Amino acid sequence: MTRTNLFPDSSAAPAAEDVARVAVSTVIFSLRRDAGRDLPTLVLPLVRRTRDPFEGLWALPGGWLDASESLDAAASRTLEETTGLAPSYLEQLYAFGAVDRSPTRVVSIVYWALLRADEASMELIDSTKDAPDNVLWFDAASLPRLAFDHNEIVDYALWRLRNKVGYSRIAHGLLGDEFTLAELREVYESILGRSLDPANFRRQVENSGTLIPTDRFRTGSHRPARLYRYNRDVELAERGPLPVRH
Amino acid sequence: MTRTNLFPDSSAAPAAEDVARVAVSTVIFSLRRDAGRDLPTLVLPLVRRTRDPFEGLWALPGGWLDASESLDAAASRTLEETTGLAPSYLEQLYAFGAVDRSPTRVVSIVYWALLRADEASMELIDSTKDAPDNVLWFDAASLPRLAFDHNEIVDYALWRLRNKVGYSRIAHGLLGDEFTLAELREVYESILGRSLDPANFRRQVENSGTLIPTDRFRTGSHRPARLYRYNRDVELAERGPLPVRH
Repeated sequence: MTRTNLFPDSSAAPAAEDVARVAVSTVIFSLRRDAGRDLPTLVLPLVRRTRDPFEGLWALPGGWLDASESLDAAASRTLEETTGLAPSYLEQLYAFGAVDRSPTRVVSIVYWALLRADEASMELIDSTKDAPDNVLWFDAASLPRLAFDHNEIVDYALWRLRNKVGYSRIAHGLLGDEFTLAELREVYESILGRSLDPANFRRQVENSGTLIPTDRFRTGSHRPARLYRYNRDVELAERGPLPVRH
Repeated sequence: MTRTNLFPDSSAAPAAEDVARVAVSTVIFSLRRDAGRDLPTLVLPLVRRTRDPFEGLWALPGGWLDASESLDAAASRTLEETTGLAPSYLEQLYAFGAVDRSPTRVVSIVYWALLRADEASMELIDSTKDAPDNVLWFDAASLPRLAFDHNEIVDYALWRLRNKVGYSRIAHGLLGDEFTLAELREVYESILGRSLDPANFRRQVENSGTLIPTDRFRTGSHRPARLYRYNRDVELAERGPLPVRH
C-alpha cells in the first residue's frame, strides 16, 4: 500500500490566502476579596477591543504569534503588553480552531495560569477605580458576551480548573507557600461555587499526601490554626496552571 | 492605564510572509503481539517522507490544515489519507511551535488516540509483510530518528499516556468492552515497560471504582478468570485518548 505523504513540506505549502493565522490568548485566574461577600471571587483580566471585529467587546489578553518567537514566548509577551501581568509560568491549555470563530481564519493557542492576589497588579485588580480603562478584572462566574469564542474558552478553562487541579497545586498557585486548611478550603469553595464540609475536606487533604503540616500557626482574631505547605516530594503526574516553574 | 489591544483583528494582520502555517499530526498507540515476547508491544504508525525536508525519514501521520475545516476534522482527514486509520475519537494533545522545528515556520496541533488491535488495519499492523510500504507500525520504545521534532512529540505522548490515563480508560481504549484483570495488567506492563505485582494491581483496580466485575469468565487453557467492564457511571474528570465517544 502506498499513500500520499501529506505531512508539511515546503513544496506543497498552502497558498497564502488559505493559511490560518496563529494567535495566542491567555486565561489568568486570581482571587479577589469583594465587600459583602463571604468567599473570595474567582476573577480573570479582560481587555476591551478597540477595533473590529467585535469592537467594544471584552476579550482575553493576547495577540499574534511572531515568526521569531515560540508559542510560550508569544503568550508571555502579549499578556505583558496587554495587561502588564507577568506570571513566572504559563501552561498551554488548548488550541481553538473552529472555522467560524473569527471573520478571518485564526487558530488561537490558549495558555493559562493561576496568580496570587499579591502577584496581580493592584491597579488592575482594584475594581473601585473609576478612571476609564481598557483592562479590567471580571468575575469569572458572570461574564458579559465576549469577543470571538472567548466565552467558550473561559468555560473550558473553568472546567479544567475545577476538575484537574490537585489540592497542592491550587495552594501553590493561589495561596503562596504556607496556608491554613480553612484558607485552602475557601479557595476551593470559590472555584467550585459551593460550600464544602470542613471535616470531609480535612480528611481528603490529609489522605492526598500532597500537603505537609508545619510547626507554625496562623494567629489573629480566631483560635490559632496550623499552617500547611506543599509537599514538593510528591511527583505530580498531573500538570496544572502552576505559576512557579521555570 | 491604557494599553494596546493586540488581540487578532483583520486590520492588524501580520504580513503573509510572517505567518506560521498550521499543520496537524496524530499519535496513534496500539498493542501488537510479537513472536518471542511475553508482553504485547506498544506500537504507533509512521509515514515515510517522500519529499524534503527530511526526505526518507519517518514522520507522524499528518498534513496541512485546510481553511475550511476545524482542527479536529483536519486531524481525522489527514490520518485517514496517510494511513487509512479512522479512530472514532481523536483527542487534542498539544500544540508544538518551536521556531526551529521545521525549515519554514510551522505550528503543529497534535492529536492522539488509543486503538484496539482489531480496529487497527491488519495490513498496516502486520510487520512481517515484506512488500515496500511507506506506512509502518513501529515499536514506541525503539524509534529511529524521526523528521522534524517528532521524536520529542512521541516522548511527550508517551509521558502523558503513562501518567494520565486511568485504568478504565486504558481498558476501554485498548481492550474492548470486557477483559480480565490479567489482560488489563498486561496492557499496563506494556505501557510502563515493567512488571507489576498482580496482588497490588488487583487491589488498586478494585479501589479505583472504575471497573465493574461481571458474571462472566474467560475460559481456555488457564483456570477461568472473571471478566470486568468499564464503569460508565464514573464521571471521569480526566479526559484521555479515548477512542469511543460520539
